[in-house]
Amino acid sequence: MRQAGRYMPEYRKLREQHSILDLCHTPELAAQVTLQPVTRLGVDAAILFADILLPFEPLGLGLSFAAGEGPHIANPIERLADVERLPVLDPEEDLGYVLEAVRLARAALPGDIPLIGFAGAPFTLASYAVEGGSSRTFTRTKTLMYQAPDTWNLLLGRMADLVGHYLAAQARAGAQALQLFDSWVGCLSPADYRTYVLPHSRRALALAAASGAPIIHFGTGTAPFLEDFASAGGDVIGVDWRIPIDDAWGRIGESRAIQGNLDPAALLAPAPERDRQVRDIVARAAGRPGHIFNLGHGVLPETDVAAVRAVVELVHGG
Amino acid sequence: MRQAGRYMPEYRKLREQHSILDLCHTPELAAQVTLQPVTRLGVDAAILFADILLPFEPLGLGLSFAAGEGPHIANPIERLADVERLPVLDPEEDLGYVLEAVRLARAALPGDIPLIGFAGAPFTLASYAVEGGSSRTFTRTKTLMYQAPDTWNLLLGRMADLVGHYLAAQARAGAQALQLFDSWVGCLSPADYRTYVLPHSRRALALAAASGAPIIHFGTGTAPFLEDFASAGGDVIGVDWRIPIDDAWGRIGESRAIQGNLDPAALLAPAPERDRQVRDIVARAAGRPGHIFNLGHGVLPETDVAAVRAVVELVHGG
Repeated sequence: MRQAGRYMPEYRKLREQHSILDLCHTPELAAQVTLQPVTRLGVDAAILFADILLPFEPLGLGLSFAAGEGPHIANPIERLADVERLPVLDPEEDLGYVLEAVRLARAALPGDIPLIGFAGAPFTLASYAVEGGSSRTFTRTKTLMYQAPDTWNLLLGRMADLVGHYLAAQARAGAQALQLFDSWVGCLSPADYRTYVLPHSRRALALAAASGAPIIHFGTGTAPFLEDFASAGGDVIGVDWRIPIDDAWGRIGESRAIQGNLDPAALLAPAPERDRQVRDIVARAAGRPGHIFNLGHGVLPETDVAAVRAVVELVHGG
Repeated sequence: MRQAGRYMPEYRKLREQHSILDLCHTPELAAQVTLQPVTRLGVDAAILFADILLPFEPLGLGLSFAAGEGPHIANPIERLADVERLPVLDPEEDLGYVLEAVRLARAALPGDIPLIGFAGAPFTLASYAVEGGSSRTFTRTKTLMYQAPDTWNLLLGRMADLVGHYLAAQARAGAQALQLFDSWVGCLSPADYRTYVLPHSRRALALAAASGAPIIHFGTGTAPFLEDFASAGGDVIGVDWRIPIDDAWGRIGESRAIQGNLDPAALLAPAPERDRQVRDIVARAAGRPGHIFNLGHGVLPETDVAAVRAVVELVHGG
C-alpha cells in the first residue's frame, strides 16, 4: 500500500509547498517521499511515490486533484471514439518522470530495501476514466460494460497494454517488484469479473511478468471471487481484511504468496486490540509459503505514525 | 429494496413539491408513494416508503438531506455521554407518522399484495450516527468500536432495542413482513462482524420476530461472512450480487429463503444481457425452499421504469 501520506508530518510539510501532482512530476521530490517511510517506519520495502492515474495526463484525459477531494478527470470516456482517440503511450517518453523517480529512489535506498513499482489495473483505471472520478455505485462504468462490450473490451485492452508495458518499464528502471492495484473491482459480481475484467488483468500481468520482476496482484472486496482473481496472475495475491488470510490460502492454494491483510482502521485502535489483530494475522500465516505483512488498503490520514511503527516492530519481533 | 424513487416520473413530480422528509412525515403522501410501484411495476409486494434514519429525529441527532447528497446528521455520536443522552423511543408516540403510513398503505393496497415494513440494522444506523453522514472508509465508526467498546455496545444495544420495537410496531400497524437493512456492514472483517455487530443484530431480529411477522435480514458485501450474518436471524436472507445465489444457499443451508440478487446496474444493460442475468438467478434458485426475486440493492436513479417492469414480467413469466 502507499506508505507515504497525510498521516506523516514530513509528507504534510512537503505538501504545504507542492501539490500531489507536483510531487509526482518532480523525480527528486517523488524519490524523497518514497524514502520517507523507510526511514520513519523501518519497513522492509519501499513503494514508489506516484499515483495510479498519472497515465491519464499523456492519454489526454485530464487529471486534477481538488483539495480534500478525490481525482477529477476532465475528459471522461463516454463512447468508442473516445477510446479510439487514446494515444498508445511510450512509458519512457510519456511517463519518463516516473521512471526517473524509480532510478533516483533505487539509487538512494539501502541495498537491502527493495523498491516496489506499481500501476492501476485495467478495471480500476477504466472506472476512473469512465466515471470522471470516484464513485460509489460505478453506474457509468457498468453501463458502458453492459451496453457497449466492444468499446469496453477495447478500453480495457488499451489499459492492459499500457499498464503492462509501464510496469515492465518500471522494472527496467530499477523496481525489484511490481504491484497491480485493482482497488474497486469488488463492486462486480463474480460472473462479471470473469467475463469483463479477468482477461484484461491477465494480459496486463503477463506483460509485466515478462520483465522478470515478481508481481503483487492486489484488490479489495475480492473475497467473493478470489480464485478467479488469483487465476489472472501474480506471484503474490494482495487481499483486504474482509477474508481471514488462512482462508485466502485455502482458496488460492499454497503455490502463491499472500500480502495482507490488516484493516487500516486497526491502526486507530488501542495498542492491545491493534496488536491482537496483528498477531492473529501472523499466526494464521505461519508455515505458509510466503507472507508479506501489510494493510488491506492504504493508511488512513487519521493514523498516528507511532501506531504504524509499532506494527512494523511487532511484525519484525514475531 | 426501496421501490419508489427518482427513476419514477410520478415520484419526481411529488418531489418537486415536497422534500424527502416531507413525504415521510405526511402519512397520506408516504402511503401514496408506497403504492406507486405496485401500480406501475406490477410487483408482488409493496415496501413502505420511509427512510432508515427517521428515528434520528426523535433521538435528537438531527437529520437533513441536502439536494443531490446523502443524509446529514447535525449532532453525531462522539462519546459515551452522547449515547447515554439518547432517549428511549416509543414507536407509537415518536414515530407514529410512520405507523400511520403503514395503516394507510395497508388499507389502500389490494388484499393480495403484502406490505413490507423496514428499519436500519444497529450497525448501519450507528455508522450514520457516528460518521454524521455517509462514509467510504467508516473511520470514525471503527475508531469508536475499537477505542470504546463499552460505548459501542451501549450504542448498538440502544439501536437494537429501538429498531426491534419499531419493526414490531410496524407489524402491529399492518406490515405483513419486516426487513432489517444492514447496508454498510460489508466494510467489516468477518471477525469484527462477529464480535461487534452480530449480537446486536440478533437482538433486533429477535425483538422483531416476536411480532410473528416473517423477517428479511438484508446486507450488502456480506459474502465473506454470510454464515455469521444468517446466524443472527431472519426467515429470509437478503444478499447482493457479489455472491451467486446458489452458493449463498449452499452456505446458509436450505432452511432459509433468500432474497436477491440482481445487480441494480443490470437494469441499465440492453434487454438481452439484463434478461440473461435475470434468468440465471431464477435458474440458480429453482427448486430451493423459497426465493424472493429482488435487486441486490436499491434501484439506481438512472434506471428506466420500463426496464424494471420488464424484469418483473420476466420473473413472473418464468
